[in-house]
Amino acid sequence: MKTSLDCIPCFIRQALEVSRLASQDEKIREDIMRRALSCLAATDLTKSPPYVARNLHRSLREFTGLADPYLREKEKHNQLALTLLNDMRVKIDASPDPLLMAIKTVVGANVIDLGAKNNNRAYMQDIPSLLAEAMHETLFGQDAYRQLQYTLAGAENILYLADNAGEIVFDRLFIEKISPEKVTLAVRGAPVINDATREDALAAGLRDIVKIIDNGSDAPGTILPDCSPEFQRCFAEADLIISKGQGNFETLVDEKREIYFLFKIKCPIIASHIGLSVNKHVLVRSNDGISDIGRPL
Amino acid sequence: MKTSLDCIPCFIRQALEVSRLASQDEKIREDIMRRALSCLAATDLTKSPPYVARNLHRSLREFTGLADPYLREKEKHNQLALTLLNDMRVKIDASPDPLLMAIKTVVGANVIDLGAKNNNRAYMQDIPSLLAEAMHETLFGQDAYRQLQYTLAGAENILYLADNAGEIVFDRLFIEKISPEKVTLAVRGAPVINDATREDALAAGLRDIVKIIDNGSDAPGTILPDCSPEFQRCFAEADLIISKGQGNFETLVDEKREIYFLFKIKCPIIASHIGLSVNKHVLVRSNDGISDIGRPL
Repeated sequence: MKTSLDCIPCFIRQALEVSRLASQDEKIREDIMRRALSCLAATDLTKSPPYVARNLHRSLREFTGLADPYLREKEKHNQLALTLLNDMRVKIDASPDPLLMAIKTVVGANVIDLGAKNNNRAYMQDIPSLLAEAMHETLFGQDAYRQLQYTLAGAENILYLADNAGEIVFDRLFIEKISPEKVTLAVRGAPVINDATREDALAAGLRDIVKIIDNGSDAPGTILPDCSPEFQRCFAEADLIISKGQGNFETLVDEKREIYFLFKIKCPIIASHIGLSVNKHVLVRSNDGISDIGRPL
Repeated sequence: MKTSLDCIPCFIRQALEVSRLASQDEKIREDIMRRALSCLAATDLTKSPPYVARNLHRSLREFTGLADPYLREKEKHNQLALTLLNDMRVKIDASPDPLLMAIKTVVGANVIDLGAKNNNRAYMQDIPSLLAEAMHETLFGQDAYRQLQYTLAGAENILYLADNAGEIVFDRLFIEKISPEKVTLAVRGAPVINDATREDALAAGLRDIVKIIDNGSDAPGTILPDCSPEFQRCFAEADLIISKGQGNFETLVDEKREIYFLFKIKCPIIASHIGLSVNKHVLVRSNDGISDIGRPL
Protein backbone atom coordinates (compact mmCIF):
# COMPACT_ATOMS: atom_id res chain seq x y z
CA MET A 1 0.00 0.00 0.00
CA LYS A 2 1.00 3.61 -0.66
CA THR A 3 2.24 6.02 1.96
CA SER A 4 -0.39 8.52 3.07
CA LEU A 5 0.53 12.14 3.70
CA ASP A 6 -0.79 11.42 7.20
CA CYS A 7 2.19 9.08 7.67
CA ILE A 8 4.63 12.02 7.53
CA PRO A 9 4.05 13.22 11.13
CA CYS A 10 4.77 9.63 12.22
CA PHE A 11 8.12 9.55 10.38
CA ILE A 12 8.98 12.92 11.94
CA ARG A 13 8.20 11.53 15.39
CA GLN A 14 10.44 8.52 14.72
CA ALA A 15 13.24 10.86 13.63
CA LEU A 16 12.79 12.86 16.86
CA GLU A 17 13.18 9.64 18.84
CA VAL A 18 16.32 8.69 16.93
CA SER A 19 17.73 12.16 17.59
CA ARG A 20 17.21 11.63 21.33
CA LEU A 21 18.65 8.13 21.31
CA ALA A 22 21.64 9.37 19.31
CA SER A 23 22.74 12.40 21.32
CA GLN A 24 22.28 14.54 24.41
CA ASP A 25 23.43 17.59 22.41
CA GLU A 26 20.49 19.72 21.24
CA LYS A 27 22.51 21.05 18.28
CA ILE A 28 23.28 17.54 17.04
CA ARG A 29 19.63 16.57 17.55
CA GLU A 30 18.64 19.58 15.46
CA ASP A 31 21.02 18.50 12.69
CA ILE A 32 19.51 15.02 12.79
CA MET A 33 16.05 16.54 12.40
CA ARG A 34 17.20 18.65 9.46
CA ARG A 35 18.56 15.52 7.83
CA ALA A 36 15.24 13.73 8.42
CA LEU A 37 13.23 16.62 6.96
CA SER A 38 15.46 16.79 3.87
CA CYS A 39 15.30 13.04 3.43
CA LEU A 40 11.48 13.01 3.62
CA ALA A 41 11.21 15.97 1.24
CA ALA A 42 12.99 13.87 -1.38
CA THR A 43 11.34 10.48 -0.73
CA ASP A 44 8.98 8.73 -3.14
CA LEU A 45 5.66 8.74 -1.31
CA THR A 46 4.01 6.44 -3.85
CA LYS A 47 5.87 3.60 -2.12
CA SER A 48 4.76 1.88 1.11
CA PRO A 49 5.33 3.40 4.58
CA PRO A 50 8.08 0.84 5.41
CA TYR A 51 9.86 1.85 2.19
CA VAL A 52 9.87 5.51 3.27
CA ALA A 53 10.85 4.50 6.82
CA ARG A 54 13.68 2.34 5.44
CA ASN A 55 15.14 5.31 3.57
CA LEU A 56 14.67 7.62 6.52
CA HIS A 57 16.28 5.36 9.12
CA ARG A 58 19.06 4.36 6.72
CA SER A 59 19.79 8.04 6.18
CA LEU A 60 19.78 8.72 9.93
CA ARG A 61 22.06 5.77 10.70
CA GLU A 62 24.47 7.04 8.07
CA PHE A 63 24.28 10.59 9.42
CA THR A 64 24.71 9.68 13.10
CA GLY A 65 27.19 6.88 12.49
CA LEU A 66 25.08 4.69 14.79
CA ALA A 67 24.46 1.29 13.24
CA ASP A 68 21.64 0.53 15.67
CA PRO A 69 20.26 3.42 17.77
CA TYR A 70 17.63 1.14 19.32
CA LEU A 71 20.04 -1.64 20.38
CA ARG A 72 19.75 -1.07 24.13
CA GLU A 73 15.95 -0.78 23.92
CA LYS A 74 15.73 -4.06 22.01
CA GLU A 75 17.92 -5.85 24.54
CA LYS A 76 15.79 -4.59 27.42
CA HIS A 77 12.60 -5.74 25.71
CA ASN A 78 14.04 -9.20 24.99
CA GLN A 79 15.17 -9.59 28.60
CA LEU A 80 11.82 -8.54 30.00
CA ALA A 81 9.96 -10.82 27.61
CA LEU A 82 12.07 -13.82 28.63
CA THR A 83 11.12 -13.31 32.28
CA LEU A 84 7.42 -13.40 31.35
CA LEU A 85 7.51 -16.29 28.89
CA ASN A 86 6.90 -19.27 31.17
CA ASP A 87 3.98 -17.68 33.01
CA MET A 88 2.33 -16.85 29.70
CA ARG A 89 2.80 -20.43 28.50
CA VAL A 90 1.15 -21.81 31.63
CA LYS A 91 -1.84 -19.52 31.11
CA ILE A 92 -2.11 -20.46 27.44
CA ASP A 93 -2.01 -24.18 28.18
CA ALA A 94 -4.62 -23.85 30.91
CA SER A 95 -7.09 -22.17 28.54
CA PRO A 96 -9.87 -24.04 26.69
CA ASP A 97 -8.41 -23.16 23.25
CA PRO A 98 -4.60 -22.91 23.64
CA LEU A 99 -4.02 -22.16 19.92
CA LEU A 100 -6.38 -19.20 20.02
CA MET A 101 -4.92 -18.03 23.33
CA ALA A 102 -1.40 -18.26 21.89
CA ILE A 103 -2.48 -16.15 18.91
CA LYS A 104 -4.12 -13.60 21.20
CA THR A 105 -0.91 -13.41 23.23
CA VAL A 106 1.40 -12.89 20.26
CA VAL A 107 -0.94 -10.25 18.80
CA GLY A 108 -0.91 -8.57 22.22
CA ALA A 109 2.89 -8.64 22.14
CA ASN A 110 2.76 -6.57 18.94
CA VAL A 111 2.25 -3.58 21.24
CA ILE A 112 6.05 -3.64 21.76
CA ASP A 113 6.67 -1.28 18.86
CA LEU A 114 8.95 1.73 19.09
CA GLY A 115 7.84 2.90 15.65
CA ALA A 116 4.26 3.53 16.80
CA LYS A 117 2.81 6.57 18.54
CA ASN A 118 3.14 6.77 22.30
CA ASN A 119 -0.48 5.93 22.97
CA ASN A 120 -0.43 2.93 20.62
CA ARG A 121 2.61 1.19 22.08
CA ALA A 122 3.69 -0.14 25.44
CA TYR A 123 5.91 1.45 28.01
CA MET A 124 8.23 -1.16 29.48
CA GLN A 125 6.49 -1.25 32.85
CA ASP A 126 3.07 -1.80 31.28
CA ILE A 127 4.05 -4.81 29.14
CA PRO A 128 3.17 -7.52 31.73
CA SER A 129 -0.33 -6.16 32.29
CA LEU A 130 -0.92 -5.43 28.59
CA LEU A 131 -0.04 -9.03 27.74
CA ALA A 132 -2.30 -10.42 30.47
CA GLU A 133 -5.10 -8.21 29.14
CA ALA A 134 -4.43 -9.29 25.54
CA MET A 135 -5.45 -12.84 26.48
CA HIS A 136 -8.94 -11.55 27.18
CA GLU A 137 -8.94 -8.98 24.39
CA THR A 138 -11.29 -9.51 21.46
CA LEU A 139 -9.44 -10.78 18.40
CA PHE A 140 -11.15 -9.85 15.16
CA GLY A 141 -10.99 -12.57 12.52
CA GLN A 142 -13.18 -15.58 13.30
CA ASP A 143 -13.33 -16.75 9.67
CA ALA A 144 -9.59 -16.29 9.23
CA TYR A 145 -8.99 -18.30 12.40
CA ARG A 146 -11.09 -21.22 11.13
CA GLN A 147 -9.24 -21.15 7.81
CA LEU A 148 -5.88 -20.86 9.52
CA GLN A 149 -6.67 -23.96 11.62
CA TYR A 150 -7.57 -25.85 8.46
CA THR A 151 -4.46 -24.65 6.58
CA LEU A 152 -2.19 -25.41 9.54
CA ALA A 153 -3.39 -29.02 9.58
CA GLY A 154 -2.04 -29.58 6.04
CA ALA A 155 0.94 -27.20 6.00
CA GLU A 156 4.44 -28.66 5.69
CA ASN A 157 6.43 -25.51 5.10
CA ILE A 158 5.47 -22.54 7.24
CA LEU A 159 7.14 -19.14 6.93
CA TYR A 160 6.71 -16.98 10.03
CA LEU A 161 7.61 -13.30 9.57
CA ALA A 162 8.62 -11.75 12.87
CA ASP A 163 8.18 -8.07 13.69
CA ASN A 164 9.83 -6.52 16.74
CA ALA A 165 12.41 -7.35 19.39
CA GLY A 166 10.77 -8.40 22.64
CA GLU A 167 7.66 -9.37 20.72
CA ILE A 168 9.69 -12.11 18.99
CA VAL A 169 10.26 -13.82 22.36
CA PHE A 170 6.50 -14.32 22.68
CA ASP A 171 6.17 -15.52 19.08
CA ARG A 172 7.63 -18.75 20.44
CA LEU A 173 4.37 -19.42 22.28
CA PHE A 174 2.45 -19.55 19.01
CA ILE A 175 5.20 -21.37 17.09
CA GLU A 176 5.27 -24.10 19.76
CA LYS A 177 1.63 -24.83 18.97
CA ILE A 178 2.15 -25.24 15.19
CA SER A 179 4.85 -27.89 14.73
CA PRO A 180 8.02 -25.79 15.06
CA GLU A 181 9.94 -28.28 12.89
CA LYS A 182 7.88 -27.07 9.93
CA VAL A 183 8.53 -23.39 10.65
CA THR A 184 11.11 -21.04 9.18
CA LEU A 185 11.32 -17.81 11.17
CA ALA A 186 12.33 -14.71 9.19
CA VAL A 187 13.75 -11.55 10.74
CA ARG A 188 15.04 -8.28 9.27
CA GLY A 189 18.39 -8.35 7.53
CA ALA A 190 19.71 -5.31 9.43
CA PRO A 191 18.64 -3.07 12.32
CA VAL A 192 15.80 -0.61 11.76
CA ILE A 193 13.76 0.93 14.61
CA ASN A 194 13.21 -1.92 17.13
CA ASP A 195 12.51 -4.55 14.49
CA ALA A 196 13.85 -7.99 15.30
CA THR A 197 17.09 -9.10 13.65
CA ARG A 198 18.95 -12.42 13.86
CA GLU A 199 20.47 -11.31 17.20
CA ASP A 200 17.02 -10.92 18.68
CA ALA A 201 15.88 -14.32 17.42
CA LEU A 202 18.97 -15.85 19.02
CA ALA A 203 18.44 -13.91 22.26
CA ALA A 204 14.89 -15.26 22.28
CA GLY A 205 16.29 -18.81 22.12
CA LEU A 206 14.36 -19.57 18.94
CA ARG A 207 17.30 -21.34 17.30
CA ASP A 208 16.44 -24.33 19.50
CA ILE A 209 13.08 -24.88 17.86
CA VAL A 210 13.02 -23.33 14.35
CA LYS A 211 15.17 -22.52 11.38
CA ILE A 212 16.03 -18.80 11.39
CA ILE A 213 16.68 -16.75 8.26
CA ASP A 214 17.01 -13.06 7.74
CA ASN A 215 15.32 -11.32 4.85
CA GLY A 216 18.39 -9.38 3.77
CA SER A 217 16.60 -6.04 4.01
CA ASP A 218 16.71 -3.10 6.42
CA ALA A 219 13.08 -2.08 5.88
CA PRO A 220 10.62 -2.20 8.83
CA GLY A 221 8.41 -4.45 6.73
CA THR A 222 8.88 -6.98 3.93
CA ILE A 223 9.64 -5.27 0.61
CA LEU A 224 10.09 -8.40 -1.52
CA PRO A 225 12.33 -6.91 -4.26
CA ASP A 226 14.54 -5.61 -1.44
CA CYS A 227 14.92 -9.08 0.12
CA SER A 228 17.64 -11.66 -0.45
CA PRO A 229 17.17 -14.43 -3.05
CA GLU A 230 17.16 -16.99 -0.20
CA PHE A 231 14.30 -15.18 1.52
CA GLN A 232 12.41 -14.72 -1.74
CA ARG A 233 12.68 -18.48 -2.38
CA CYS A 234 11.39 -19.27 1.12
CA PHE A 235 8.52 -16.87 0.55
CA ALA A 236 7.63 -18.43 -2.81
CA GLU A 237 7.89 -22.02 -1.54
CA ALA A 238 6.03 -21.67 1.77
CA ASP A 239 2.60 -23.28 1.83
CA LEU A 240 1.60 -21.07 4.77
CA ILE A 241 2.80 -17.58 5.61
CA ILE A 242 2.08 -16.04 8.99
CA SER A 243 3.05 -12.39 9.22
CA LYS A 244 3.37 -10.28 12.37
CA GLY A 245 2.90 -6.52 12.62
CA GLN A 246 1.65 -3.58 10.64
CA GLY A 247 4.86 -3.04 8.64
CA ASN A 248 4.67 -6.52 7.15
CA PHE A 249 0.97 -5.97 6.45
CA GLU A 250 1.62 -2.66 4.69
CA THR A 251 4.25 -4.21 2.43
CA LEU A 252 2.61 -7.58 1.73
CA VAL A 253 -1.16 -7.03 1.73
CA ASP A 254 -1.20 -6.50 -2.04
CA GLU A 255 0.67 -9.75 -2.80
CA LYS A 256 -1.26 -12.26 -4.87
CA ARG A 257 -0.97 -15.15 -2.46
CA GLU A 258 -2.55 -16.22 0.82
CA ILE A 259 -1.03 -14.61 3.91
CA TYR A 260 -2.29 -14.55 7.51
CA PHE A 261 -1.55 -11.22 9.16
CA LEU A 262 -1.52 -10.91 12.94
CA PHE A 263 -1.21 -7.45 14.45
CA LYS A 264 -2.49 -4.68 16.62
CA ILE A 265 -3.90 -1.77 14.58
CA LYS A 266 -1.70 1.20 15.40
CA CYS A 267 -2.85 4.06 13.22
CA PRO A 268 -5.98 5.55 11.63
CA ILE A 269 -4.75 4.80 8.08
CA ILE A 270 -4.60 1.06 8.71
CA ALA A 271 -7.76 1.20 10.84
CA SER A 272 -9.64 2.68 7.92
CA HIS A 273 -8.09 0.18 5.47
CA ILE A 274 -9.26 -2.74 7.62
CA GLY A 275 -12.55 -1.25 8.76
CA LEU A 276 -11.80 -1.52 12.47
CA SER A 277 -10.57 1.06 14.95
CA VAL A 278 -7.09 1.83 16.26
CA ASN A 279 -5.81 -0.55 18.99
CA LYS A 280 -7.99 -3.46 17.83
CA HIS A 281 -6.28 -6.84 17.63
CA VAL A 282 -6.71 -8.63 14.31
CA LEU A 283 -6.07 -11.84 12.44
CA VAL A 284 -6.52 -10.86 8.79
CA ARG A 285 -6.36 -13.32 5.88
CA SER A 286 -5.49 -11.83 2.54
CA ASN A 287 -5.20 -13.42 -0.86
CA ASP A 288 -5.19 -10.80 -3.58
CA GLY A 289 -7.21 -8.59 -1.22
CA ILE A 290 -8.41 -8.80 2.37
CA SER A 291 -11.18 -11.30 3.09
CA ASP A 292 -14.10 -10.31 5.26
CA ILE A 293 -12.70 -9.76 8.76
CA GLY A 294 -15.58 -11.73 10.23
CA ARG A 295 -16.84 -11.84 13.79
CA PRO A 296 -14.68 -11.35 16.85
CA LEU A 297 -13.18 -14.27 18.76
CA MET B 1 11.42 31.53 23.46
CA LYS B 2 13.22 29.07 21.20
CA THR B 3 11.53 26.49 19.02
CA SER B 4 11.70 22.99 20.45
CA LEU B 5 12.33 20.00 18.20
CA ASP B 6 8.97 18.81 19.54
CA CYS B 7 7.37 21.72 17.66
CA ILE B 8 8.31 20.16 14.31
CA PRO B 9 5.48 17.58 14.23
CA CYS B 10 3.09 20.48 14.89
CA PHE B 11 4.39 22.46 11.89
CA ILE B 12 4.08 19.33 9.75
CA ARG B 13 0.47 18.93 10.87
CA GLN B 14 -0.25 22.56 9.97
CA ALA B 15 1.30 22.00 6.53
CA LEU B 16 -0.91 18.92 6.06
CA GLU B 17 -3.95 21.04 6.83
CA VAL B 18 -2.87 23.74 4.39
CA SER B 19 -2.38 21.04 1.73
CA ARG B 20 -5.96 19.90 2.26
CA LEU B 21 -7.39 23.41 2.27
CA ALA B 22 -5.41 24.21 -0.89
CA SER B 23 -6.28 21.28 -3.14
CA GLN B 24 -8.31 18.12 -3.66
CA ASP B 25 -5.48 16.70 -5.79
CA GLU B 26 -3.29 14.26 -3.86
CA LYS B 27 -0.29 14.99 -6.11
CA ILE B 28 -0.52 18.73 -5.42
CA ARG B 29 -0.93 18.01 -1.72
CA GLU B 30 2.22 15.88 -1.85
CA ASP B 31 4.12 18.71 -3.52
CA ILE B 32 2.91 21.10 -0.81
CA MET B 33 4.21 18.68 1.85
CA ARG B 34 7.57 18.41 0.07
CA ARG B 35 7.79 22.18 0.08
CA ALA B 36 6.95 22.26 3.81
CA LEU B 37 9.58 19.62 4.63
CA SER B 38 12.24 21.46 2.61
CA CYS B 39 11.31 24.77 4.22
CA LEU B 40 11.53 23.33 7.75
CA ALA B 41 14.84 21.61 6.97
CA ALA B 42 16.31 25.04 6.23
CA THR B 43 14.65 27.04 9.03
CA ASP B 44 16.51 28.58 11.97
CA LEU B 45 15.18 26.66 14.97
CA THR B 46 16.88 28.96 17.47
CA LYS B 47 14.05 31.43 16.76
CA SER B 48 10.56 31.25 18.30
CA PRO B 49 7.84 28.86 17.05
CA PRO B 50 5.84 31.73 15.46
CA TYR B 51 8.99 32.73 13.56
CA VAL B 52 9.31 29.22 12.12
CA ALA B 53 5.56 29.11 11.44
CA ARG B 54 5.73 32.50 9.72
CA ASN B 55 8.39 31.22 7.32
CA LEU B 56 6.54 27.96 6.74
CA HIS B 57 3.14 29.51 6.01
CA ARG B 58 4.70 32.28 3.93
CA SER B 59 6.46 29.61 1.86
CA LEU B 60 3.24 27.62 1.47
CA ARG B 61 1.20 30.68 0.44
CA GLU B 62 3.83 31.48 -2.16
CA PHE B 63 3.90 27.88 -3.40
CA THR B 64 0.12 27.42 -3.58
CA GLY B 65 -0.61 30.95 -4.81
CA LEU B 66 -3.29 31.15 -2.10
CA ALA B 67 -3.03 34.41 -0.18
CA ASP B 68 -5.23 33.09 2.63
CA PRO B 69 -5.99 29.34 2.71
CA TYR B 70 -7.98 29.74 5.96
CA LEU B 71 -10.22 32.61 4.74
CA ARG B 72 -13.46 30.60 4.63
CA GLU B 73 -12.75 29.02 8.04
CA LYS B 74 -12.13 32.44 9.57
CA GLU B 75 -15.37 33.83 8.12
CA LYS B 76 -17.34 30.89 9.50
CA HIS B 77 -15.84 31.34 12.96
CA ASN B 78 -16.57 35.07 12.98
CA GLN B 79 -20.16 34.48 11.91
CA LEU B 80 -20.74 31.82 14.56
CA ALA B 81 -19.15 33.97 17.25
CA LEU B 82 -21.40 36.92 16.39
CA THR B 83 -24.50 34.77 16.92
CA LEU B 84 -23.27 33.84 20.42
CA LEU B 85 -22.04 37.26 21.55
CA ASN B 86 -25.16 38.72 23.15
CA ASP B 87 -25.97 35.60 25.15
CA MET B 88 -22.43 35.52 26.51
CA ARG B 89 -22.67 39.19 27.48
CA VAL B 90 -25.90 38.59 29.41
CA LYS B 91 -24.27 35.72 31.32
CA ILE B 92 -21.17 37.80 32.08
CA ASP B 93 -23.22 40.74 33.37
CA ALA B 94 -25.33 38.45 35.55
CA SER B 95 -22.27 37.02 37.30
CA PRO B 96 -20.92 38.28 40.65
CA ASP B 97 -17.60 39.36 39.10
CA PRO B 98 -18.27 40.42 35.49
CA LEU B 99 -14.64 41.37 34.81
CA LEU B 100 -13.39 37.94 35.86
CA MET B 101 -16.20 36.26 33.93
CA ALA B 102 -15.33 38.29 30.82
CA ILE B 103 -11.68 37.20 31.15
CA LYS B 104 -12.70 33.56 31.58
CA THR B 105 -14.85 33.85 28.46
CA VAL B 106 -12.16 35.36 26.26
CA VAL B 107 -9.61 32.82 27.47
CA GLY B 108 -12.16 30.10 26.67
CA ALA B 109 -12.53 31.58 23.19
CA ASN B 110 -8.80 31.00 22.64
CA VAL B 111 -9.79 27.38 21.86
CA ILE B 112 -10.71 28.64 18.37
CA ASP B 113 -7.23 27.95 17.01
CA LEU B 114 -6.60 26.14 13.74
CA GLY B 115 -2.87 26.03 14.46
CA ALA B 116 -3.32 23.75 17.49
CA LYS B 117 -3.67 19.98 17.60
CA ASN B 118 -7.13 18.52 17.05
CA ASN B 119 -7.65 17.64 20.68
CA ASN B 120 -6.58 21.09 21.88
CA ARG B 121 -8.87 23.15 19.68
CA ALA B 122 -12.59 23.42 19.06
CA TYR B 123 -14.64 21.91 16.30
CA MET B 124 -17.20 24.43 15.08
CA GLN B 125 -20.17 22.58 16.59
CA ASP B 126 -18.53 22.39 20.03
CA ILE B 127 -17.76 26.11 20.35
CA PRO B 128 -21.03 27.12 22.07
CA SER B 129 -20.70 24.46 24.78
CA LEU B 130 -16.93 25.02 25.21
CA LEU B 131 -17.54 28.73 25.80
CA ALA B 132 -20.32 28.04 28.29
CA GLU B 133 -17.99 25.64 30.11
CA ALA B 134 -15.12 28.15 30.05
CA MET B 135 -17.17 30.44 32.30
CA HIS B 136 -16.98 27.79 35.02
CA GLU B 137 -13.45 26.66 34.15
CA THR B 138 -10.68 27.36 36.63
CA LEU B 139 -8.51 30.27 35.54
CA PHE B 140 -4.97 30.07 36.89
CA GLY B 141 -3.55 33.43 37.88
CA GLN B 142 -5.10 34.88 41.03
CA ASP B 143 -2.16 37.19 41.75
CA ALA B 144 -1.98 38.35 38.14
CA TYR B 145 -5.72 39.08 38.22
CA ARG B 146 -5.37 41.28 41.33
CA GLN B 147 -2.47 43.15 39.73
CA LEU B 148 -4.33 43.49 36.45
CA GLN B 149 -7.31 45.05 38.26
CA TYR B 150 -4.97 47.51 39.95
CA THR B 151 -3.12 48.34 36.71
CA LEU B 152 -6.39 48.70 34.79
CA ALA B 153 -7.60 51.32 37.25
CA GLY B 154 -4.67 53.61 36.37
CA ALA B 155 -4.09 52.72 32.72
CA GLU B 156 -4.70 55.37 30.06
CA ASN B 157 -3.22 53.64 27.04
CA ILE B 158 -4.04 49.95 26.71
CA LEU B 159 -2.71 47.80 23.88
CA TYR B 160 -4.74 44.63 23.32
CA LEU B 161 -3.08 42.01 21.11
CA ALA B 162 -5.69 39.82 19.45
CA ASP B 163 -5.06 36.25 18.42
CA ASN B 164 -7.52 34.37 16.19
CA ALA B 165 -10.54 35.03 14.01
CA GLY B 166 -13.77 34.08 15.79
CA GLU B 167 -11.98 34.50 19.11
CA ILE B 168 -11.61 38.20 18.34
CA VAL B 169 -15.40 38.61 18.33
CA PHE B 170 -15.47 37.53 21.98
CA ASP B 171 -12.54 39.79 22.90
CA ARG B 172 -15.12 42.56 22.72
CA LEU B 173 -16.72 41.24 25.93
CA PHE B 174 -13.53 41.88 27.89
CA ILE B 175 -12.70 45.14 26.12
CA GLU B 176 -16.19 46.49 26.96
CA LYS B 177 -15.31 46.09 30.64
CA ILE B 178 -12.01 48.03 30.48
CA SER B 179 -12.84 51.45 29.01
CA PRO B 180 -12.74 50.71 25.26
CA GLU B 181 -11.84 54.35 24.52
CA LYS B 182 -8.42 53.68 26.07
CA VAL B 183 -7.84 50.52 24.05
CA THR B 184 -5.90 50.03 20.82
CA LEU B 185 -6.59 46.61 19.35
CA ALA B 186 -3.75 45.09 17.31
CA VAL B 187 -4.20 42.35 14.73
CA ARG B 188 -1.79 40.58 12.34
CA GLY B 189 -0.56 42.53 9.34
CA ALA B 190 -1.36 39.72 6.89
CA PRO B 191 -3.13 36.34 6.91
CA VAL B 192 -1.41 33.41 8.63
CA ILE B 193 -3.27 30.29 9.80
CA ASN B 194 -6.57 31.56 11.29
CA ASP B 195 -4.99 34.52 13.05
CA ALA B 196 -7.15 37.63 13.08
CA THR B 197 -6.37 40.39 10.59
CA ARG B 198 -7.97 43.81 10.12
CA GLU B 199 -10.81 42.18 8.16
CA ASP B 200 -11.68 40.02 11.14
CA ALA B 201 -11.61 42.96 13.55
CA LEU B 202 -13.98 44.80 11.19
CA ALA B 203 -16.23 41.73 10.81
CA ALA B 204 -16.35 41.56 14.61
CA GLY B 205 -17.63 45.16 14.68
CA LEU B 206 -14.76 46.29 16.88
CA ARG B 207 -14.20 49.49 14.91
CA ASP B 208 -17.23 50.89 16.73
CA ILE B 209 -15.54 50.75 20.12
CA VAL B 210 -11.72 50.73 19.74
CA LYS B 211 -8.91 51.96 17.56
CA ILE B 212 -7.67 49.11 15.36
CA ILE B 213 -4.10 48.79 14.10
CA ASP B 214 -2.32 45.95 12.40
CA ASN B 215 1.18 44.94 13.43
CA GLY B 216 2.55 44.83 9.89
CA SER B 217 3.71 41.23 10.27
CA ASP B 218 2.53 37.87 8.95
CA ALA B 219 3.79 35.86 11.94
CA PRO B 220 1.29 33.97 14.14
CA GLY B 221 2.66 35.85 17.13
CA THR B 222 4.29 39.22 17.76
CA ILE B 223 7.89 39.31 16.55
CA LEU B 224 8.69 42.92 17.41
CA PRO B 225 11.52 43.52 14.87
CA ASP B 226 9.14 42.17 12.23
CA CYS B 227 6.39 44.66 13.13
CA SER B 228 5.69 48.08 11.62
CA PRO B 229 7.15 51.25 13.22
CA GLU B 230 3.59 52.31 14.08
CA PHE B 231 2.96 49.09 15.98
CA GLN B 232 6.35 49.24 17.69
CA ARG B 233 5.54 52.76 18.89
CA CYS B 234 2.16 51.65 20.25
CA PHE B 235 3.87 48.77 22.00
CA ALA B 236 6.50 51.05 23.57
CA GLU B 237 4.00 53.71 24.65
CA ALA B 238 1.27 51.46 26.09
CA ASP B 239 1.00 51.55 29.86
CA LEU B 240 -0.80 48.21 29.84
CA ILE B 241 -0.45 45.37 27.35
CA ILE B 242 -2.95 42.52 27.28
CA SER B 243 -1.95 39.68 25.00
CA LYS B 244 -4.13 36.83 23.78
CA GLY B 245 -2.95 33.37 22.77
CA GLN B 246 0.10 31.15 22.87
CA GLY B 247 1.79 32.61 19.78
CA ASN B 248 1.93 36.07 21.34
CA PHE B 249 3.18 34.49 24.58
CA GLU B 250 5.94 32.59 22.79
CA THR B 251 7.18 35.73 21.05
CA LEU B 252 6.78 38.25 23.89
CA VAL B 253 7.40 36.40 27.14
CA ASP B 254 11.08 37.35 27.14
CA GLU B 255 10.40 41.08 26.68
CA LYS B 256 11.62 43.29 29.50
CA ARG B 257 8.30 44.94 30.23
CA GLU B 258 5.06 44.05 31.96
CA ILE B 259 2.61 42.08 29.83
CA TYR B 260 -0.55 40.21 30.82
CA PHE B 261 -0.96 37.03 28.79
CA LEU B 262 -4.34 35.35 28.49
CA PHE B 263 -4.52 31.96 26.83
CA LYS B 264 -5.39 28.31 26.88
CA ILE B 265 -2.30 26.08 27.15
CA LYS B 266 -2.23 24.05 23.95
CA CYS B 267 0.97 22.00 24.01
CA PRO B 268 3.31 20.20 26.41
CA ILE B 269 6.19 22.61 25.70
CA ILE B 270 4.23 25.62 26.97
CA ALA B 271 2.66 23.54 29.73
CA SER B 272 6.11 22.68 31.03
CA HIS B 273 7.30 26.31 30.65
CA ILE B 274 4.38 27.55 32.75
CA GLY B 275 4.21 24.63 35.17
CA LEU B 276 0.60 23.75 34.44
CA SER B 277 -0.90 21.07 32.22
CA VAL B 278 -2.21 21.22 28.65
CA ASN B 279 -5.73 22.67 28.28
CA LYS B 280 -5.49 24.78 31.43
CA HIS B 281 -6.70 28.38 31.16
CA VAL B 282 -4.23 30.98 32.36
CA LEU B 283 -3.74 34.67 33.07
CA VAL B 284 0.05 35.06 33.27
CA ARG B 285 1.83 38.28 34.17
CA SER B 286 5.38 38.59 32.95
CA ASN B 287 7.94 41.32 33.42
CA ASP B 288 11.40 40.11 32.53
CA GLY B 289 10.23 36.61 33.47
CA ILE B 290 6.96 35.00 34.50
CA SER B 291 5.68 35.83 37.97
CA ASP B 292 4.35 33.09 40.18
CA ILE B 293 1.14 31.84 38.53
CA GLY B 294 -0.64 31.92 41.89
CA ARG B 295 -3.80 30.19 42.95
CA PRO B 296 -6.71 29.41 40.66
CA LEU B 297 -9.69 31.72 40.31
